[in-house]
Amino acid sequence: MLDKRPLPQIIADKIIDLIESKELLPGERLPSEQELMKELSVGRGTIREAIKSLVSRNIVEIRRGVGTFVAEKTGVVEDPLGFSFINNKNKLVKDSMDVRLLLEPSIAKWAARNATDSEILEIIELSHKIEIAILNDEDYSDLDVEFHTKIANSSRNLVVENLIPILTTNIRSLIDVTHAALKEHTILSHKKIANAIKERDEELAEQLMKEHIEINQKYLDESFYN
Amino acid sequence: MLDKRPLPQIIADKIIDLIESKELLPGERLPSEQELMKELSVGRGTIREAIKSLVSRNIVEIRRGVGTFVAEKTGVVEDPLGFSFINNKNKLVKDSMDVRLLLEPSIAKWAARNATDSEILEIIELSHKIEIAILNDEDYSDLDVEFHTKIANSSRNLVVENLIPILTTNIRSLIDVTHAALKEHTILSHKKIANAIKERDEELAEQLMKEHIEINQKYLDESFYN
Repeated sequence: MLDKRPLPQIIADKIIDLIESKELLPGERLPSEQELMKELSVGRGTIREAIKSLVSRNIVEIRRGVGTFVAEKTGVVEDPLGFSFINNKNKLVKDSMDVRLLLEPSIAKWAARNATDSEILEIIELSHKIEIAILNDEDYSDLDVEFHTKIANSSRNLVVENLIPILTTNIRSLIDVTHAALKEHTILSHKKIANAIKERDEELAEQLMKEHIEINQKYLDESFYN
Repeated sequence: MLDKRPLPQIIADKIIDLIESKELLPGERLPSEQELMKELSVGRGTIREAIKSLVSRNIVEIRRGVGTFVAEKTGVVEDPLGFSFINNKNKLVKDSMDVRLLLEPSIAKWAARNATDSEILEIIELSHKIEIAILNDEDYSDLDVEFHTKIANSSRNLVVENLIPILTTNIRSLIDVTHAALKEHTILSHKKIANAIKERDEELAEQLMKEHIEINQKYLDESFYN
């Protein structure tokens, strides 16, 4: 059979096969250019082009002077749903919050059920860090994304683990986090959610997350109309 | 200030800016290599490398012999959540269904509220096509993805529009669609959902979609344990 794919793509797909079959694990180093050339019987240019295409899809990452490694979040690119190309950012943020309201209460419930003890410690620590950042008048939006992502990771649902960072990262720049009442709410509600997860109280975690997202939606609506 | 990005990336980002500012629209043709070289004062190799990286992120697409065009679903990559790199496919399917159960009932409700008349006709037509495929003993999984995607499009939520095709496409190969009782359920429930959307009955559409996903989960569980 005639393979119509360009040679660099064939090579890239071969490397993907190695990752999918777990012969290469996330964080592991790829064979050197020399070794790949020999093993796959192709030239240096082909290898380099294949690697470049894998880098652009976040399947591997190049650490300068060290080597090429399988990316930790293999294959999840920075803006996979093309949010940066949606022009109506207000609608995008509103729609993201609507989706988060559907997902995150259940995610908090699952986290209360499935989180490991060390994950619970991390969730509590993040809620403390957010409190300190807010009290010091620092931007806490990255920490906020981390808090919600850590809870998603702890839920043990493979889909939301990759989804929640996307839904939270893309909207954080558009929420007015300087609102004093929102800050106070954020400190308190994150603490309460972390504590409900710690106590393994699934229903309380679910309910608190629901309230947390709803209050964020309220502040969001207000900032749109101001 | 020193720009540390490699030159092809700077060029790729410039083209992205043109798309984000709507100077280039989805489906529109990019200027020729020659024109880009002149306008951006860089060599052919740099342009080609920039275009390649845009192709790999599905921002532009090359139509051989015709030219380079802004992709219709700009920036939505094929496997945005990296599902192909998750090894436990059974768990992935189960988790996808859990997430669909959280999302799709509300999506059906929003579709009953927001679908245009022509979208409603398309949803009904798809439910007919699925019925015919099932009665002819043909594989209806592509049509099933289309049905759920069309409802997501009709919901007017920008996030789920891109998300539902991913959640449905990746799992269709793993559901045993040959099960006779599931076939019968599928024909009937799709018809009922389409009809509830047509009647603008938001609560009924929501309820029927919930039951539809739950029954699929049931068959999924059974096929895992067989």
